[in-house]
Amino acid sequence: MPATDTTETENQESGAEKTPAAETLASALTELQALLGKRCSLAEAVRSTHGKGESWHPLQAPDAVCFAESTQEVAAIVTICARYRIPVIPYGSGTCIEGQLQAVHGGISIDLSAMNAILAVHSDDMDCRVQAGVTRKQLNSHLRDTGLFFPIDPGADATIGGMAATRASGTNAVRYGTMRENVLSLTYVDASGAIVQTGTRARKSSAGYDLTHLLVGSEGTLGVITEIGLRLHGQPEAVLAAVADFPSVDAAVQTVIETVQLGIPMARIELVDSTSIRAINAYSHTDYPERDTLFLEFHGTDASVEEQVSTFRELAVAQGSERFEQARFEEERSRLWQARHDAYYAIMAAHPGKEGMSTDVCVPISSLAIIINWMREVIVESPFESEVLGHVGDGNFHMIFCITPGSETELAAANQLNEQLVHRAIELGGTCTGEHGIGLGKLKYLRREHGDAAVDTMQSIKRALDPNNLMNPGKTVAV
Amino acid sequence: MPATDTTETENQESGAEKTPAAETLASALTELQALLGKRCSLAEAVRSTHGKGESWHPLQAPDAVCFAESTQEVAAIVTICARYRIPVIPYGSGTCIEGQLQAVHGGISIDLSAMNAILAVHSDDMDCRVQAGVTRKQLNSHLRDTGLFFPIDPGADATIGGMAATRASGTNAVRYGTMRENVLSLTYVDASGAIVQTGTRARKSSAGYDLTHLLVGSEGTLGVITEIGLRLHGQPEAVLAAVADFPSVDAAVQTVIETVQLGIPMARIELVDSTSIRAINAYSHTDYPERDTLFLEFHGTDASVEEQVSTFRELAVAQGSERFEQARFEEERSRLWQARHDAYYAIMAAHPGKEGMSTDVCVPISSLAIIINWMREVIVESPFESEVLGHVGDGNFHMIFCITPGSETELAAANQLNEQLVHRAIELGGTCTGEHGIGLGKLKYLRREHGDAAVDTMQSIKRALDPNNLMNPGKTVAV
Repeated sequence: MPATDTTETENQESGAEKTPAAETLASALTELQALLGKRCSLAEAVRSTHGKGESWHPLQAPDAVCFAESTQEVAAIVTICARYRIPVIPYGSGTCIEGQLQAVHGGISIDLSAMNAILAVHSDDMDCRVQAGVTRKQLNSHLRDTGLFFPIDPGADATIGGMAATRASGTNAVRYGTMRENVLSLTYVDASGAIVQTGTRARKSSAGYDLTHLLVGSEGTLGVITEIGLRLHGQPEAVLAAVADFPSVDAAVQTVIETVQLGIPMARIELVDSTSIRAINAYSHTDYPERDTLFLEFHGTDASVEEQVSTFRELAVAQGSERFEQARFEEERSRLWQARHDAYYAIMAAHPGKEGMSTDVCVPISSLAIIINWMREVIVESPFESEVLGHVGDGNFHMIFCITPGSETELAAANQLNEQLVHRAIELGGTCTGEHGIGLGKLKYLRREHGDAAVDTMQSIKRALDPNNLMNPGKTVAV
Repeated sequence: MPATDTTETENQESGAEKTPAAETLASALTELQALLGKRCSLAEAVRSTHGKGESWHPLQAPDAVCFAESTQEVAAIVTICARYRIPVIPYGSGTCIEGQLQAVHGGISIDLSAMNAILAVHSDDMDCRVQAGVTRKQLNSHLRDTGLFFPIDPGADATIGGMAATRASGTNAVRYGTMRENVLSLTYVDASGAIVQTGTRARKSSAGYDLTHLLVGSEGTLGVITEIGLRLHGQPEAVLAAVADFPSVDAAVQTVIETVQLGIPMARIELVDSTSIRAINAYSHTDYPERDTLFLEFHGTDASVEEQVSTFRELAVAQGSERFEQARFEEERSRLWQARHDAYYAIMAAHPGKEGMSTDVCVPISSLAIIINWMREVIVESPFESEVLGHVGDGNFHMIFCITPGSETELAAANQLNEQLVHRAIELGGTCTGEHGIGLGKLKYLRREHGDAAVDTMQSIKRALDPNNLMNPGKTVAV
């Protein structure tokens, strides 16, 4: 493992690019406005909604926002920007949380939300092709009558392009995988403005380098994703949601380990700790026992769901679980999951006036209880409260630090705690980010996690594919 | 899609590198022998077993074979080769079939078969870490008592390193995925001799570029894979193998489409056409009806396997399937699958004195019957016989052309037929290779499949990570 001083590295790596000079920018904007008319906006209000996601990272507005309507238009925009050496930052729905949208060197935000056509659904092949601005809820509404669905659910109604760019996942990943497993092919515009097609509609291929996976998770730093080919899944015949409480995080996690080992194909397994349950009860008017709790979902045929539930309950009871509340009909299930999805808002409501900072480490599941318990001890001393939400089937969990806005002391303490957590996760064989991405927020952990040789390799790729460092510069691998 | 003349491209691209001069090679060999002693072999017999896989591609022996025993030793070998600009070609078990091993510019074969330690098995996390020379059968023997198994089964007892390098798959991929889905992390030695770690033990991560997936399928052209972290799966409680016959390929494929859409988690679905069944019956002393046939395997709990089989049979009968022979016990199942695994040998035995050339296209499953039927018509005119074997759940199938060794006419006709097949597969949204890889054999199809922009991007990556073109030069993306 490398001995690099991460702070130094971060400064060094993100300072490589210069913000464009005013006259260069003005010439580029003249061309962009000639291309797009009013769809190239310089308005302050538009720019400031495009320079920030949903997190504590401060706004850094782009110089202009271009609303693209086709891949060809994105290519034309990038070509102009490349000629003037103006940075380009893709924008979907603005729900990212690691500073992926901040225009650290100025430049143009390309808003893809108007590219929201569902281009094809191939039912027999269980795949589809969508433009980058399609949101996951829009896609699932469209699919409702096909017997198919798109399972990745990061909570927010993010765009598919944004989800591909950040390698998003969420509550369903334990069964259906993340964007890594569900993106079959891509169209993207590279740093020169060329349109690149990756992958095919074949389910598997050994033909050349896997550019699809290279682009998934690249956060706009290698190109602007404009179309995505997705794997779809059959809507399960039966769905059963449930809530089970446990005497401890260890007992809950042990149950999950045994469940997964027995090959029970759980669709969702979410951990909500006892203090978060209290917040949920207050916010969602529920009455769950204030114990460490698993929210669960089982998919399958009627018979297999019954069998899954029965096996799960046996394992849970052996670990001291008492209550098992189940919801079979869609309305009940929605209510149950709404409570889980609202957990973040519930936590914030329980701490009025505070701002949330979410951690995102992911560890091998055998280490999950270890790291959660360790962290709970560490944070006893912290100047703010914090709660735990976890995608426990994957070993991914979020601690929500409830900090006072504007308090530099608390922000510093939160960053320091997050750093301790990340270091511990990496020691345990895990990653600093299970699903939120690197953006700006986790840049300083990249070398510790991957080592110098791997990060140098990533940077070589970035330099080869974006020699002028124009694609979302300063993020992800920060050359 | 590009209008490039593929023949011209191929010649142009694979001619970039020069074979090292004799004195340079001699100096490098002196250093390699000092490092490895007898484990650096110049023997003709050793060299010639390392310059060819299991296919019709003619032998091109390396200048020497180095038998490595550790990642550090591989790094030392590559460092010496890099200094003298000598090509390096990794070797596992020699079972590749697209010319991945041929030393087209001479150089050193690094034989990794002695690196066969299973480094760790983490039962709770259902993952393991192995050296590149571990074979899949060795790994599964080791796992037997853990309740876990490694599902990827390309037929041959290939090494895990070789399987990762070629993005291999096989009969289980429909349920368990390919090497793409099952490699969690890697250690590899890059073109400079540096040791690179990719990925972590976390099940998911959004931390930077996905180097793991970039290396998987890169066929030794970006580095020498020395260790692999693998996802493992729980041994199913119940396994049932079966054989079902159908009146036509269409009926068999339609059954498979419906099966997959209903979410039946089939473990294997293999198509063997009627003429191949005749060959199998003769070779394996079986008496399957000479009809287009599916070989199947169901995994799950006792109850879920029963449910899967019952649903499958309903669908099959509706498509005109008559016979359904099932095998529950391990010995019967092995016999049944041995017949399928021996299909290639059965086909060759049915055509004594002939040599097999296997195609490998993969198409969206809805196009599978279309392309198989189209190809059956096209080959009527061919000067040799051919048979069909397919991983039908994935849309991947092999036509085995039975050609006369040494007949340039037949080889040319086979290559031309393969080209027609590949072009048709690409038109249908598919790939020229589902699992065998590009190597030398399919280089000429890469631009047609991916387009110039994507192949140029792959070549930029190759140049950035291997500026002197020393890692298995002339293969895969052939800069």
